[in-house]
Amino acid sequence: MQPGRWVIPTPDLAAADRARERQSRLTKPPGSLGVLEEVAVKLAALQGTPLPRSRPAAALLFAADHAVTRHGVSPYPSAVTAAMVENFLRGGAASSVLCRQLGVPLHVVDVGVLRPPARPPDEGISFRRDPVADEPGGDLRVEDAMSEATFRRALAAGAEGVDKLPDDVCLVMLGEMGIGNTTAAAAVAALLLERKAEEVVGRGTGVDNAGLARKVEVVGDAVRRLEGAGPERAVQSAGGRDIAALVGAAARAIERRKVVLVDGFIVSVAMLALERMAPGAREWMLFAHRSAEAGHRHVLEALGARPMLDLGLRLGEGSGALTALPLVDAACALHAGMATFEEAGVPDRGQG
Amino acid sequence: MQPGRWVIPTPDLAAADRARERQSRLTKPPGSLGVLEEVAVKLAALQGTPLPRSRPAAALLFAADHAVTRHGVSPYPSAVTAAMVENFLRGGAASSVLCRQLGVPLHVVDVGVLRPPARPPDEGISFRRDPVADEPGGDLRVEDAMSEATFRRALAAGAEGVDKLPDDVCLVMLGEMGIGNTTAAAAVAALLLERKAEEVVGRGTGVDNAGLARKVEVVGDAVRRLEGAGPERAVQSAGGRDIAALVGAAARAIERRKVVLVDGFIVSVAMLALERMAPGAREWMLFAHRSAEAGHRHVLEALGARPMLDLGLRLGEGSGALTALPLVDAACALHAGMATFEEAGVPDRGQG
Repeated sequence: MQPGRWVIPTPDLAAADRARERQSRLTKPPGSLGVLEEVAVKLAALQGTPLPRSRPAAALLFAADHAVTRHGVSPYPSAVTAAMVENFLRGGAASSVLCRQLGVPLHVVDVGVLRPPARPPDEGISFRRDPVADEPGGDLRVEDAMSEATFRRALAAGAEGVDKLPDDVCLVMLGEMGIGNTTAAAAVAALLLERKAEEVVGRGTGVDNAGLARKVEVVGDAVRRLEGAGPERAVQSAGGRDIAALVGAAARAIERRKVVLVDGFIVSVAMLALERMAPGAREWMLFAHRSAEAGHRHVLEALGARPMLDLGLRLGEGSGALTALPLVDAACALHAGMATFEEAGVPDRGQG
Repeated sequence: MQPGRWVIPTPDLAAADRARERQSRLTKPPGSLGVLEEVAVKLAALQGTPLPRSRPAAALLFAADHAVTRHGVSPYPSAVTAAMVENFLRGGAASSVLCRQLGVPLHVVDVGVLRPPARPPDEGISFRRDPVADEPGGDLRVEDAMSEATFRRALAAGAEGVDKLPDDVCLVMLGEMGIGNTTAAAAVAALLLERKAEEVVGRGTGVDNAGLARKVEVVGDAVRRLEGAGPERAVQSAGGRDIAALVGAAARAIERRKVVLVDGFIVSVAMLALERMAPGAREWMLFAHRSAEAGHRHVLEALGARPMLDLGLRLGEGSGALTALPLVDAACALHAGMATFEEAGVPDRGQG
């Protein structure tokens, strides 16, 4: 997969105008639905229709292990990645529960988990182990997380994840699972934003002060090793197969005019990398939430993003995107379903 | 209905502890679901069970006209109240759409609309005109909005709205419709908070600068007329039948151990009045959103409330509460549906 060849489609501004015009005729004071109005108008532009939709939606999660965990950057051992993949497939993880609750199919792609799951997934959940999962992963502190060839194949694994979704899916929620991947994401963020390690490193799954200090050190070493790296090199050498797959998945989703509902810190870092590789990509993103993870605000700021939710979530797995999906559903339902002043026979604004 | 006799039930702290203990065993880093964890634990305390629920839920809207509109405090004429009630019943209003989308029954109670609706409501929507709707309403600028007897009957109309809901409804979303009622709510807020008119008056449905100045003047006159009024007198003389009904409805809901999901500015003012009449009531409330209406933040602050959403909504009709309902649904689904570390065979935290 070749980042240089990605073509970002142009939003349809005429459709946005027609959606805005419809909003002005709905039985409510102008602007009184706030962000829900903006979401409907934005989706109209992206889908090229004055009556946009949020469904069918799909959740697409990429899982991988990270050699950097050997430095004690997470309170959980690497084995948790595989165990959590099993948990996704058995319906017990937060994302599995939210997908079930919202009627969203859950697709899990293994792009580098040390131990493949023992059993096939439960109903309504799909699982695929991409061949890239068997390629070696490096310790980003001292070496490239991926070779250039592995990086390309991880991007392609992400794109394939999107291509395997039903064609009519119009909104994709990306997520990840990988012990150690907030360290990788922080390293990529530090490189993209030219910020110090301590500005983008957070506690991830809840590392203690000593672990946090180790994490800052590890990211600092990676940044020194890779100073001046562009977005592709940053993801290849400081990221991981999960993060690369997120970039490839979003790129393909956008090429295919699907909207990406962006989760928290790790997915946002991947989206910032994509925006740097393919300017304009961020126009195709809705931002679900502001994570409690420390570095997220810098990444959101660089993306010019104002997320819909700020609930102190910091779980990953696409759980923030899934939590925000009902807001996008509401925006579309209100936009399409409310009566206009004319239809309802409601007198419009009279005196000032 | 007698505010002095309301009994606020005590939350069950043992159930909250059990819910908190369950949260600690779910397959996620502790605290990583942020506010969604807090909501589940709070609901557990209120419902007296470690596995709380958000459904069945119901939306209960009170509609009334306000004589104060004669001063040009709204860009819309009073006739819009009746027309919007028709719109609720025909399924074209924002709240109707959200109720349909979320599978929530919509109940509309007319407590003072100038013109009753012409036709019965569509399926899934209930309508009742309470006898208090035929009693006179006063212009709060110069006289009491209600007599003391009308005020009692409006409280009772609210309580009856709750009593007519199915017994198993565990969560009530209150809302209102009434041209002029942000003026009434601002007057009540100014009295309860001992704040100046200009601190609590906002643009409501979108009044222009001249209208805003008139609104401040009207509220200022009411506050001078009623200085030192307690919460009952404030609602009776500066509120309106819709606001009094909201107070009575919330009081009855809480007496019956139902959780109130609080909408925006007007409902919050009614909830603050209730808290002043029956201390501890606010423990039974979840706060849906921070409205764009200017005075809301002062009311939220006085209630010690941190709302779940901040989306620039300012529509009323319970629309903010309905927009937040899926977050409460998510909190309950995650709490009940996620696997524990033990169930999923996921290793818990190892090294720091």
